[in-house]
Amino acid sequence: MDFIPQASASRMHLSLRAKKGIDKYPAKAHAQRVGDQLGREKCIVALVGEKAEFFSNSDMPRPFRQDRYFYYISGCSEPGCSVTYDVEHDKLTLWLPPINLDRVYYDGRGSTVEQAMELYDIDEAVYLEHDERSNSNLCDWVNQRKADGCECIFIRNPLSGVDLSLYGREVDRPESPGLTLRKAMNACRAVKDEHEIALIRKANAVSAEGHVAILKSLHRLHSEPEVEGVYRGTCISLGTTEQSYGPICGAGEHASQLHYVTNKSQFADAEVLLIDAGAEWECYASDVTRTMPINKHEPGTWKSKEAKAVYKHVEKIQEKCIAMLRPGVHFMDVMLHSVHMAIDALLDLGILKGKHMDIFHDGVSAGFYPHGLGHHIGLEVHDVEPPTIKAQDKEEPWKARFADLQQAHARYVESTGTSLYSAQTTSTEPRHFSIDPTKCLSPSTPADAPLTPGMVVTIEPGIYFNAFVLETFYLDHPEHRKYIDRKVLERYMHVGGVRIEDDILITKDGYENLTTAPKGEEMLRIIRKGKK
Amino acid sequence: MDFIPQASASRMHLSLRAKKGIDKYPAKAHAQRVGDQLGREKCIVALVGEKAEFFSNSDMPRPFRQDRYFYYISGCSEPGCSVTYDVEHDKLTLWLPPINLDRVYYDGRGSTVEQAMELYDIDEAVYLEHDERSNSNLCDWVNQRKADGCECIFIRNPLSGVDLSLYGREVDRPESPGLTLRKAMNACRAVKDEHEIALIRKANAVSAEGHVAILKSLHRLHSEPEVEGVYRGTCISLGTTEQSYGPICGAGEHASQLHYVTNKSQFADAEVLLIDAGAEWECYASDVTRTMPINKHEPGTWKSKEAKAVYKHVEKIQEKCIAMLRPGVHFMDVMLHSVHMAIDALLDLGILKGKHMDIFHDGVSAGFYPHGLGHHIGLEVHDVEPPTIKAQDKEEPWKARFADLQQAHARYVESTGTSLYSAQTTSTEPRHFSIDPTKCLSPSTPADAPLTPGMVVTIEPGIYFNAFVLETFYLDHPEHRKYIDRKVLERYMHVGGVRIEDDILITKDGYENLTTAPKGEEMLRIIRKGKK
Repeated sequence: MDFIPQASASRMHLSLRAKKGIDKYPAKAHAQRVGDQLGREKCIVALVGEKAEFFSNSDMPRPFRQDRYFYYISGCSEPGCSVTYDVEHDKLTLWLPPINLDRVYYDGRGSTVEQAMELYDIDEAVYLEHDERSNSNLCDWVNQRKADGCECIFIRNPLSGVDLSLYGREVDRPESPGLTLRKAMNACRAVKDEHEIALIRKANAVSAEGHVAILKSLHRLHSEPEVEGVYRGTCISLGTTEQSYGPICGAGEHASQLHYVTNKSQFADAEVLLIDAGAEWECYASDVTRTMPINKHEPGTWKSKEAKAVYKHVEKIQEKCIAMLRPGVHFMDVMLHSVHMAIDALLDLGILKGKHMDIFHDGVSAGFYPHGLGHHIGLEVHDVEPPTIKAQDKEEPWKARFADLQQAHARYVESTGTSLYSAQTTSTEPRHFSIDPTKCLSPSTPADAPLTPGMVVTIEPGIYFNAFVLETFYLDHPEHRKYIDRKVLERYMHVGGVRIEDDILITKDGYENLTTAPKGEEMLRIIRKGKK
Repeated sequence: MDFIPQASASRMHLSLRAKKGIDKYPAKAHAQRVGDQLGREKCIVALVGEKAEFFSNSDMPRPFRQDRYFYYISGCSEPGCSVTYDVEHDKLTLWLPPINLDRVYYDGRGSTVEQAMELYDIDEAVYLEHDERSNSNLCDWVNQRKADGCECIFIRNPLSGVDLSLYGREVDRPESPGLTLRKAMNACRAVKDEHEIALIRKANAVSAEGHVAILKSLHRLHSEPEVEGVYRGTCISLGTTEQSYGPICGAGEHASQLHYVTNKSQFADAEVLLIDAGAEWECYASDVTRTMPINKHEPGTWKSKEAKAVYKHVEKIQEKCIAMLRPGVHFMDVMLHSVHMAIDALLDLGILKGKHMDIFHDGVSAGFYPHGLGHHIGLEVHDVEPPTIKAQDKEEPWKARFADLQQAHARYVESTGTSLYSAQTTSTEPRHFSIDPTKCLSPSTPADAPLTPGMVVTIEPGIYFNAFVLETFYLDHPEHRKYIDRKVLERYMHVGGVRIEDDILITKDGYENLTTAPKGEEMLRIIRKGKK
């Protein structure tokens, strides 16, 4: 578990600093953790933040989003800045763009150096200066430190203004001692501190308000745009214009498209509404999915037994998977458990027929549950990957990783004490599997380290009925169609899809669910109450 | 007026095509207008649309916004497309990205060629193919047409996927016959057709609903984010997630920052709320500003006589300027009129003292009304500039254009029959002027052609009290401070700022106001009614 920062002098420093400005984003502590991970003494970390940009052939600004590596060690989301951390001297410097007096009447201005010292957890703030000799005083400073024998390492940001590539390189050489900067930062980012957890909690609280606002008004809504309007309006009113991702408000068949963000249709005769929407708070993400009945005559009640049955199965899968989370657990095992439970569900509903393990091996369940169980969440909704167990090349063919999957299955059998799901996986063709973990996001892959306290992951099983996908890949495929009862399936196509998703913090002893948006019976009760 | 497309065979074609699909965006007619403007026979126009992109170091997509030149001749806002118009054969072809089956479960898919023929006003739809020989079958086709003696012209889109620069160049040579493609397209885009006017009208209708929702709920709102939430939520509910620009919801002093988009503050003791917010509809913009009282105890009533007086003056300026609009009018004249009226207002309020023309010449009014009167609006909120009267280099010093300003003033005197405002402009230093038209957006500059039917322009005068700007540039400046009554000004600082803005269509006989959001007394009435 070498990716958890070790106790060190710099962590003592953190607790001392906390008294100084408890509410500041802990940029300095993050820089120090990254410095520890790098394991180099004479080294400067230099990151260039995102700059303001226009759309092509337009004077309209592209929506600004700070680079997350930059934010992690600066806490600053102003455009056009750079940040440097001098490991040797333990000095964190924010480089600010000069104030353009001509634009103050229009755009206001960024922080002055004095304001930056107040706002951010940094040691020094300096204005960037550009002159003819170099592209900035930042580059001069980097050159000076290099002359002193320092290594300059950075992560390339293709949209950055200052070209640091002249002054160092993004270290990714096998002969390089210690971790690359990207890997060092990923190792730190994967394990959240108290401040980060508080921000994810806050993002979830805002999302919950948005979801509740939908539930309360659902009886009077008739279309996807109305749902998105209620949700986004509520989140903006609470102080965050940013969403972690484009909200998905899919009614009926649209619930079967995983990243449906069009949100333009009337409900018409849809009977299920899937809302996958999570607000962002100070650059931290939440990721929340709720699925609910659309029922004009009896709001808060499932219109068909099919829709209710699918919801109940997904609910059971999610609850069971959340309950499995604790430090030391391999997430892939939990994911495989969810796949097996989904197969049981599809057998129980009568949509699939045949033997459980045959279905698992031949991969037909991927037609109904095609995605991983979850992912890390933090500064990104799909947050960065911590260092893997083995330094395997991600491009290696799936076959080479097959041993890991078998081991994971063995662990699964051991942990559940049941042989029902013990995978006799003999085929090496990924398309024959119900889930290909090597194509999933971290922490679902075979190479991922076990869960540790401070990680935050989503748990988001789902069952879908996507006509295009089923028709294209499954119903006409001889290896798959023998397992599918077309007649029963037809009754379920109308459901569209069900997904339920929460953000779970791994604690010392187990887990804590950070998502507070109502689900299940409580959700239905609020819809019913909203009507009155 | 050579930038208005001439009646031609291709326009006959338009009316015939209209019967086929009245609701389709008239992409073909636009392509034909552009072809007419280019005045070349053997020529293909090739434009590459915007492609889907990720944020740096992230798997989150950047918000997608179609390139407006591309949209003008395709009507297509799907990512990754190209469009070609073969002038000789009058053939408009949309090149679609191939459908990625692996992503259908996640993202759905773009149009098939069959769907594209249904959706868009084009002659042909083709899938883009990439192979080893060339970067696409599109490039092969361009090469083939070049071998036939065709010129290939395009507008560079730096984010495009297909690199057309290998196959032609963005023609901008003085020796080149006819207009450059960019100028030809700008000439067409500046004069809106019926379909475009209907879209701007619809965008304005949505904006009006958003503004009305604010008015109705203002009595129970306490902060800028709540205002933005109500506005955006309403617009999204009505089916448009896109705004033409970041909504400005500035209370009190924030009303004095022209492009304030932070929208994070409580109202506290602010007494004025400035909302500059316009929805987009099918890529067409609206641009609407309303300023209203914040008054907890008496909603819909101005809290101070200062705020009411400033509003009344700006209202008068706006009404007068709108009434001046008709074909043949030079917009700069209207703008200068607004500056003179603002000076009269500031004299009337007692904030300025001294002689009207001295104030005008010394430029002190720019401290309170620092921006142009308006701009074109269409596919961009700041829409493209039609060809100028003289082919002057925009980089020429202001001095060289001074004659134009004098001529404009002479025209103004002639048209109003008053000598009050006749500018004896002798100084050639732009900073001594109350407005520098050369720095304004079209159609406010001296080189802009007079207004013609089909143009849509904004009229948005304002008076502001920006502490930073006044303190930095005016109150300590010996040439300015002698005109400013500091004591009176202090009473007005609290107002922040007032701006009122509508989108005006120039018609054959005069104008039509496309903006339907309530203002003035009607606005106050709705706020008062909302309380009950």
